[in-house]
Amino acid sequence: MIKVSLIGSGNVAHHLIEAFSKAANVELVQVMARHPENISHLLSPNQIISDYSQLLEADLYIIAVSDAAVSEVSQQLPFKNKLVAHTSGSLAMDALADNNRKAVFYPLQTFSKTKSVDFKMIPIGLESANATDFKVVEQVAKSISDQVFTINSVQRKALHVAAVFMNNFTNHLYQIGADICKEHQLSFEILKPLIRETTEKIMVLSPAEAQTGPAKRNDQQTIDSHLALLKDANQKAIYTLLTQSIQNHE
Amino acid sequence: MIKVSLIGSGNVAHHLIEAFSKAANVELVQVMARHPENISHLLSPNQIISDYSQLLEADLYIIAVSDAAVSEVSQQLPFKNKLVAHTSGSLAMDALADNNRKAVFYPLQTFSKTKSVDFKMIPIGLESANATDFKVVEQVAKSISDQVFTINSVQRKALHVAAVFMNNFTNHLYQIGADICKEHQLSFEILKPLIRETTEKIMVLSPAEAQTGPAKRNDQQTIDSHLALLKDANQKAIYTLLTQSIQNHE
Repeated sequence: MIKVSLIGSGNVAHHLIEAFSKAANVELVQVMARHPENISHLLSPNQIISDYSQLLEADLYIIAVSDAAVSEVSQQLPFKNKLVAHTSGSLAMDALADNNRKAVFYPLQTFSKTKSVDFKMIPIGLESANATDFKVVEQVAKSISDQVFTINSVQRKALHVAAVFMNNFTNHLYQIGADICKEHQLSFEILKPLIRETTEKIMVLSPAEAQTGPAKRNDQQTIDSHLALLKDANQKAIYTLLTQSIQNHE
Repeated sequence: MIKVSLIGSGNVAHHLIEAFSKAANVELVQVMARHPENISHLLSPNQIISDYSQLLEADLYIIAVSDAAVSEVSQQLPFKNKLVAHTSGSLAMDALADNNRKAVFYPLQTFSKTKSVDFKMIPIGLESANATDFKVVEQVAKSISDQVFTINSVQRKALHVAAVFMNNFTNHLYQIGADICKEHQLSFEILKPLIRETTEKIMVLSPAEAQTGPAKRNDQQTIDSHLALLKDANQKAIYTLLTQSIQNHE
């Protein structure tokens, strides 16, 4: 059994706790949380601590806190030469303090506390400062996911940026679609099959093959009529910029 | 049996031919195509015509051609007082010529010839100039789809604009994600579980509930580091505009 302890009680920590609790080869020793009430329903009380001095021996300490707090948390750890990983998509491995052995354990997914996920399907990108430690993070990652891969800090940041486009920004386009529906007394439900098909297409076609619509067809008449319908300046600006981007894409 | 004839051989016509060929209550009488070779594998030769004068009697003529051609095609029809529908999301019903009875038969979906679709799941928005004709288009629509609804021309255009945001623009964000992956020697496959989860979330959460990421968190440090990684001016512009739009959204 590999012993793992977690620091954090946010979305990522929440889903990692659930995944490790089910994993056969991992013992979740402790979770350190500034807000224990967030995770008290997931663990037994003796597993939850709120002070660094209470941290017990573990093979891997995973820091799952906001990017801004990672560096400081890593400096607060009251031990040396142990294996410490962060879970951030954007931070370099070197954001971790130098007194412990460094690694990154990056689950590429969008986590909301109110929606459970199948961790087996979540890609986990790994990085470590030395090969022996890589074996440890790899074994932990493989205990909860079927999609484990190696990635360096620059690639990881690029992947995170791509993920922002493909999840955060895509969801915001859903928001705009919902806003337009509401304005015109239409149910957002009508658009759900289209959302599903958009996703299904990208599983089997390249983005270039899957691209359709007035921008792709250079159908200026439809583009103009859409811009005339949109009253919101921000929606107009997004429509115009993305239309141009599709038209200029090689 | 309701007799239906189609004019057109593009993506929408292609998928309607497949759907009507399987429908129990509809007889697909003829398809008129400028490019018969596009659809010759879907129909028997005697069903395919290339001249308006060959059009036989039908209960409904569906014009599935590009928006720019709808009006002219409707004017070329060599008969009067028959029921004629177009399939456009953007065009008003009145784009059809006045010499026939007007209707709209709008399947809300993204069609690519290389990807088959389950028409039962595709919402079809209907409009007609009179109630008797509505019964006809409704019966035809229900023979191929389980999601048939009434929608007026303004609502339909709004729905089409929403669909552009949620399909065309979303797919372009996938394209940008793929471009970023390629630039950094990353497989696009890594992002597919994230795409799936983004879709799954929107089936059970509202767009506002599903929104995550640095823009939503007002995490300016991550936003700056992402903008520093992006070299392409167009990608930077899209990142900036969509980040602001998320931050300003109420």
